[in-house]
Amino acid sequence: MEKSEASAIDIAESGRERKGKAALLGAAKNARAARHKRGVAIFDLILRISAAAAALAATITMGTAEETLPFFTQFFQFQASYDDLPTSTFFVIAMSIVTGYLVLSVPFSIVCIARPGARGPRLLLILCDTLTVTLATSAAASSAAIVYLAHNGNSSANWLAICQQFTDFCQRISGAVVASFITVALLIFLVLLSALALRKH
Amino acid sequence: MEKSEASAIDIAESGRERKGKAALLGAAKNARAARHKRGVAIFDLILRISAAAAALAATITMGTAEETLPFFTQFFQFQASYDDLPTSTFFVIAMSIVTGYLVLSVPFSIVCIARPGARGPRLLLILCDTLTVTLATSAAASSAAIVYLAHNGNSSANWLAICQQFTDFCQRISGAVVASFITVALLIFLVLLSALALRKH
Repeated sequence: MEKSEASAIDIAESGRERKGKAALLGAAKNARAARHKRGVAIFDLILRISAAAAALAATITMGTAEETLPFFTQFFQFQASYDDLPTSTFFVIAMSIVTGYLVLSVPFSIVCIARPGARGPRLLLILCDTLTVTLATSAAASSAAIVYLAHNGNSSANWLAICQQFTDFCQRISGAVVASFITVALLIFLVLLSALALRKH
Repeated sequence: MEKSEASAIDIAESGRERKGKAALLGAAKNARAARHKRGVAIFDLILRISAAAAALAATITMGTAEETLPFFTQFFQFQASYDDLPTSTFFVIAMSIVTGYLVLSVPFSIVCIARPGARGPRLLLILCDTLTVTLATSAAASSAAIVYLAHNGNSSANWLAICQQFTDFCQRISGAVVASFITVALLIFLVLLSALALRKH
């Protein structure tokens, strides 16, 4: 009976030890996962700030694009400004919204760094990011179509290239379109990163 | 000793019972989750097929858009075709790619229905869907900018509205743009659905 009791205690002990080891292993795994998530969250924040900067640059470049040609006739002066093209007006509005959203989403991204396990903020970010990437893409693509037309014209529709006269104006709006495409690329990367991070939960 | 042994057996029994109940509850929960995931996967398949149909309609409508005006001069006949506008050519190519991708992704969606717990196919779908939504949006937005120009012209840039002559052609390309925006809306919904489904894993 003595022996049996002793062996029972032995089994209990070893069971407790095993449990302890398992708990330790689990904690280590959790810590690793949390570190990984925190790394992703920091990368997310950096990408987000870069995208906001690119979007702001695109907005300002397009919004301040105007040129007055140095020659004029008796009746009018030749000048071009971004609001002569409805697409550019849309571009400025859409990219302002994108910039605003990206700046406002920074606190949520910081919450994701502080609490790597939080699922709510990450899900909110991926949903809003998806909508934002569509808005930014539509602004970039529609302006690209018009800038292409301004550079090359279209002989079939009898639309002339205006960039032969307004070179400075065209360079500015081309720069804005390039900046907006950089924003789109960063945002796509951000959505893919969030989707991969969400999978680990 | 007899009593103590009996009570030990009692505890063991009740422990086993509890474990059995927990297993049953767990199985019920798993079955509910699997049913939920399967429902999402079926909805995903329906949305995917609808989006493919809309993309195909957009491609065909744009690709077959041409009009020859009933009057002509001695030197040439007035005709418009989709490949007079480079943006429309891009539209046809991009929407063909989107249609092809959506059709090819149907088997993966069916795999998600058959094996609701499979994580790989769902992740693959959400990543590719995000890229496709950007491609479809850029095609839709750039064509929308050109179609707007064709309808209204732009007096500042001296681009005339060609839709006053080519009414039929303009109606076709407008229809194609509307269909492409329907594709974009369905794709956005698909990505959001996939993100929500991925969270449950």
